[in-house]
Amino acid sequence: MRINLINPNTCVGMTEKIADSARAAALSSTEIIASMPKDGPESIESAFDEVIASAALLDVIKQGEENKVDAHIIACFGDPALDAAREIASVPVIGIAGAAFQLASLVAYRFGVVTTMTRTLPASEHLLHRYGYQHLCSGVRATDIAVLDLEHIEDDVYRELKAECEKALFEDGAEALVLGCAGMSDLTDKLAAELNVPIIDGVCAAVKLAESLHQLGLKTCKTGQYGSPLKKSFNGRYEHWNK
Amino acid sequence: MRINLINPNTCVGMTEKIADSARAAALSSTEIIASMPKDGPESIESAFDEVIASAALLDVIKQGEENKVDAHIIACFGDPALDAAREIASVPVIGIAGAAFQLASLVAYRFGVVTTMTRTLPASEHLLHRYGYQHLCSGVRATDIAVLDLEHIEDDVYRELKAECEKALFEDGAEALVLGCAGMSDLTDKLAAELNVPIIDGVCAAVKLAESLHQLGLKTCKTGQYGSPLKKSFNGRYEHWNK
Amino acid sequence: MRINLINPNTCVGMTEKIADSARAAALSSTEIIASMPKDGPESIESAFDEVIASAALLDVIKQGEENKVDAHIIACFGDPALDAAREIASVPVIGIAGAAFQLASLVAYRFGVVTTMTRTLPASEHLLHRYGYQHLCSGVRATDIAVLDLEHIEDDVYRELKAECEKALFEDGAEALVLGCAGMSDLTDKLAAELNVPIIDGVCAAVKLAESLHQLGLKTCKTGQYGSPLKKSFNGRYEHWNK
Amino acid sequence: MRINLINPNTCVGMTEKIADSARAAALSSTEIIASMPKDGPESIESAFDEVIASAALLDVIKQGEENKVDAHIIACFGDPALDAAREIASVPVIGIAGAAFQLASLVAYRFGVVTTMTRTLPASEHLLHRYGYQHLCSGVRATDIAVLDLEHIEDDVYRELKAECEKALFEDGAEALVLGCAGMSDLTDKLAAELNVPIIDGVCAAVKLAESLHQLGLKTCKTGQYGSPLKKSFNGRYEHWNK
Amino acid sequence: MRINLINPNTCVGMTEKIADSARAAALSSTEIIASMPKDGPESIESAFDEVIASAALLDVIKQGEENKVDAHIIACFGDPALDAAREIASVPVIGIAGAAFQLASLVAYRFGVVTTMTRTLPASEHLLHRYGYQHLCSGVRATDIAVLDLEHIEDDVYRELKAECEKALFEDGAEALVLGCAGMSDLTDKLAAELNVPIIDGVCAAVKLAESLHQLGLKTCKTGQYGSPLKKSFNGRYEHWNK
Amino acid sequence: MRINLINPNTCVGMTEKIADSARAAALSSTEIIASMPKDGPESIESAFDEVIASAALLDVIKQGEENKVDAHIIACFGDPALDAAREIASVPVIGIAGAAFQLASLVAYRFGVVTTMTRTLPASEHLLHRYGYQHLCSGVRATDIAVLDLEHIEDDVYRELKAECEKALFEDGAEALVLGCAGMSDLTDKLAAELNVPIIDGVCAAVKLAESLHQLGLKTCKTGQYGSPLKKSFNGRYEHWNK
Repeated sequence: MRINLINPNTCVGMTEKIADSARAAALSSTEIIASMPKDGPESIESAFDEVIASAALLDVIKQGEENKVDAHIIACFGDPALDAAREIASVPVIGIAGAAFQLASLVAYRFGVVTTMTRTLPASEHLLHRYGYQHLCSGVRATDIAVLDLEHIEDDVYRELKAECEKALFEDGAEALVLGCAGMSDLTDKLAAELNVPIIDGVCAAVKLAESLHQLGLKTCKTGQYGSPLKKSFNGRYEHWNK
Repeated sequence: MRINLINPNTCVGMTEKIADSARAAALSSTEIIASMPKDGPESIESAFDEVIASAALLDVIKQGEENKVDAHIIACFGDPALDAAREIASVPVIGIAGAAFQLASLVAYRFGVVTTMTRTLPASEHLLHRYGYQHLCSGVRATDIAVLDLEHIEDDVYRELKAECEKALFEDGAEALVLGCAGMSDLTDKLAAELNVPIIDGVCAAVKLAESLHQLGLKTCKTGQYGSPLKKSFNGRYEHWNK
Repeated sequence: MRINLINPNTCVGMTEKIADSARAAALSSTEIIASMPKDGPESIESAFDEVIASAALLDVIKQGEENKVDAHIIACFGDPALDAAREIASVPVIGIAGAAFQLASLVAYRFGVVTTMTRTLPASEHLLHRYGYQHLCSGVRATDIAVLDLEHIEDDVYRELKAECEKALFEDGAEALVLGCAGMSDLTDKLAAELNVPIIDGVCAAVKLAESLHQLGLKTCKTGQYGSPLKKSFNGRYEHWNK
Repeated sequence: MRINLINPNTCVGMTEKIADSARAAALSSTEIIASMPKDGPESIESAFDEVIASAALLDVIKQGEENKVDAHIIACFGDPALDAAREIASVPVIGIAGAAFQLASLVAYRFGVVTTMTRTLPASEHLLHRYGYQHLCSGVRATDIAVLDLEHIEDDVYRELKAECEKALFEDGAEALVLGCAGMSDLTDKLAAELNVPIIDGVCAAVKLAESLHQLGLKTCKTGQYGSPLKKSFNGRYEHWNK
Repeated sequence: MRINLINPNTCVGMTEKIADSARAAALSSTEIIASMPKDGPESIESAFDEVIASAALLDVIKQGEENKVDAHIIACFGDPALDAAREIASVPVIGIAGAAFQLASLVAYRFGVVTTMTRTLPASEHLLHRYGYQHLCSGVRATDIAVLDLEHIEDDVYRELKAECEKALFEDGAEALVLGCAGMSDLTDKLAAELNVPIIDGVCAAVKLAESLHQLGLKTCKTGQYGSPLKKSFNGRYEHWNK
Repeated sequence: MRINLINPNTCVGMTEKIADSARAAALSSTEIIASMPKDGPESIESAFDEVIASAALLDVIKQGEENKVDAHIIACFGDPALDAAREIASVPVIGIAGAAFQLASLVAYRFGVVTTMTRTLPASEHLLHRYGYQHLCSGVRATDIAVLDLEHIEDDVYRELKAECEKALFEDGAEALVLGCAGMSDLTDKLAAELNVPIIDGVCAAVKLAESLHQLGLKTCKTGQYGSPLKKSFNGRYEHWNK
């Protein structure tokens, strides 16, 4: 199968890192097509960033559809534009936060989330509520590490992250940890080895769920809320959506 | 005071209608500046439309800030981009759905919502939950009237809308009705006269709340979640956000 | 318009203070009629006090109705007898707690409440639930300042109150503060200046909402749960309700 | 033990009926002291009635305390003034709605409530929430039988009540029925025989719970929220509370 | 009446202790028949233990039915197999956790639970949710005292337990305490005397509720979810259920 | 990888059918080991059946552990004994209901569940709550088809099932359907073809999730709530657990 793995920000290094993680997790028969919008912010750390990136991201969904991919993955922990993407896609669209929550709940009584900026906590809480995992989550912790500092992770950044993970385990009672940023995906194995609990990276989780749906022949229901949007006129920089 | 009243779609007739309603509700000392994005969809009836309109809408918030308005109103019942707008605005930003829920709850034990397309029901339900009014709402009903059919309302469209309002009152137990589209704002008085219950139009409600905050000197807290976004690089069609 | 501003306890100084705050917040066209029951407790700090004050308060609603006021405000943070008042009033009745929650939610992601006695915490929690604002509140903090000590506020009382406000901001994550007692209304400006966050006094908030409803022509729906009570016989000290 | 069984309205016939039910349910060693306020409404069918009756009811709690009873029962399905009563009583205070919910949940997967006026539905819903039994209740149904019509129940009133009970069983899926008015307590056996499901009368349930607490030596905790109210000045018709 | 008081583990000393507590709480006309399964674990401290004990416990319910008891009590704080027991019993089945929550809520604004192993906390939380008492509980605290160490309680075990009780009162705000293990039932009086708050032992609470139901003639509804299971074939060590 | 696919009832035909479904869904590198307990009921249709089957099922988990499988699947829609199984297993244990909810939520806005007996509805509702999918489920519908009638499905049974599926879609608003019994797994393709919406069989879903966890190296956290039970003495027919 072919998966359109979308980094919704415009940071090339992040796109490459995410693609590496996805490829390591994918079956050999799965082709990972790493993609990113040409427009929008270089990282997503506020509601403002997310709104801009969401609009840009939909162009990449459209490209993937034209390329006849079998699934799309939105590789940003806020699962931006997920509903909109499902409306314009004919194949499944999976967000990495939702994917991570699902797998984490299978291997732990309570999981914790360790994410980047304090500013993104409401987004994580919204997603826990949206997907219904709030009662299975021991808490969301912010490291206040900037997303772009995750592109090339320094020792002190790793130490801060690990320290917050330990608080999640020992203070909050987490039994597994969800990494709350696609940019942390390359730390999964190291943290799992050092902390000795399941560490769930949403990028890998989403790849496995996309493969699962594909193998079972399951696609988004297109006759209800995720049906194609009504045709209408778009103006200005969004005129390309008229076609 | 000066209010930036934003119609987030690109339909000129709708913008004018909303402005008329707002001006009728405003104090004589309040100036209503009707605005709309130059980019984006002509109406908002899906998650896809909303994502595109949200990005476009933020430009209009920015213009309003440059014009030194005292408040912004987002005049679409989905309250699109509300959090993002609060982040980039220095003055209060009010969504018409939230505003309508607040005033409705002051004059009725349970209020109903009558909106446009079935497709928009999840958005209304999300907002009821976000603002905490789910238990005070007797239900949301869709008329499946297209938003643009509200620009110039025909008799049969009015009859359909009124019929759905009556179901909300007599089947669901609503005691007041919230009109679930800015494009319905000119029907408020007619419906109130014919149905004899409080009819709440979010546009008017938002104007009164904006005036209330202004008179009390209350502005969005800018030191927490609604603080200004971190400066970062934006690419392509969003490069104007670099400044 | 004319507002019946009711202090439900029998403390004259408190009634005057509340009236001053209300008048400062009101439009010049709004007349504030300060009123209080001649019966009942001098302050409300327990469920017992509230039950007695509630029965007494309804007499003041009735007087206001006879005086043909345009709205009633119940100026005690427990919003006592709100439903009963709405049943016997023809015009809107607004409680100051509900009013404060509404405006606070417009200017902050999470607001905190700072109130008087620990004994009143369950009442605040009940109101947050009733109005649906629990998830938007970062917590309710009691100062254990007696209500009557707020009549003439000493320096040390102010310091205690401010210290609790700071805990709400820095420990609980509040981004705006609701003052949980009508007797604190004269401290709004001082606290706002010193703490640099929105401070919401329910008395002022209720005045603005009463004006808003009046200007929009919105009144309590009288055909449902808030309809007039059935006529029936009242005995003893409540015989005046037979008329 | 001696139980102060309080009918909070001023209808003598109702007080006698309730006392009969309570005595039939009580142990031979339990003395039922039937009491009622000399002030207030003859029946409780609105929030307004409840506020007045609540203030009047507290006098009867005080009398019971002076008579050194071992428990108080508030025999009105709204459980009016329960918290206030617990504050001024030294012995347990039990409301009949809460008592009925408890026993009903022991003998059925889901119980239904059949009550009097539609106007009282919000009160029942509030109590289900307060006590936490909402998810165990299949629904609350109003018969729109006036409370005073229950004093001497005619055949047609009984038929209406039974018909609503059958709807609760067969349409809502109730497996036991709680009678939502103290005035229905004499119908318990007849309905149980004819409907062949557990019928729970709150008056009897409250008597058994009062006896249970007494036999186990359990009394209301007086060091927390139900502690005695602070002494303060009461004016006018409530001056007797100064003592 | 005759109560089948079931200790679901196979520890004889625990069965005797529980029986003593139950007899002290019972009316003189109530016969307590202490019983225990001949199969299963000697204590219940994990989900695994509970599953095994649940299957074993049902045999004891069946014996009780054959002995024509008037009620069954499941005397383990997890209320194991409660629904299954209600299906195969003709008379009420009461779990001690649910019973304790009910009586505790009658004498305190918030109650705390003090239980044995940390491992059992999820079970307590599940029960609070199942019965709807989560919002009335100030928290569940584990002592990490093994169940069998409660058979003969040493001084240091008592001190640990009491210390945890004090934390529940002074840190969590509990106003009454529920003892979260049947094996603690003999400590009720001592703790109540020393801590001066209501202490609720579920064994005693369940006895009083069983007596209450019996005296009111209330039995489990057998026509709905708690109806007798369909007859079917059982294999192997469960063949005795074929009869 | 090797998966211990457990049918918790003792019906051989059901075990074979489930194995066929699982094998069709599995990767070629996955070995499905179909297993069933030698003890217990031939079908699970009540809480009683489930308690017995749960105890029996744990023996099959133990066998699987001895066989060094890589995951266990509990193939009964009640996900019986899931927590207990996770305690005694070293590898992931997946229930088919939870697995089905997860995949269904990825391809539909709301999914419906169509299950067997009305008696099993509370079990489904409990699972929706446990996993947090209640708000994503449009409703659970019972067909009152007996589980064993699913062993060899007749035309009329299929028609009944399909009719209930259509009600879920057209009356409840489901956009995907979860089959609420492992015995329906062979109908997935036929229903999907005829109803044209995603049909999710939990057996297949669980196989894909087991493979996903295995490929990512994720195993149950054994240091918290799912840690191995404390060693203790087991009596009678459970003596084999002493070893």
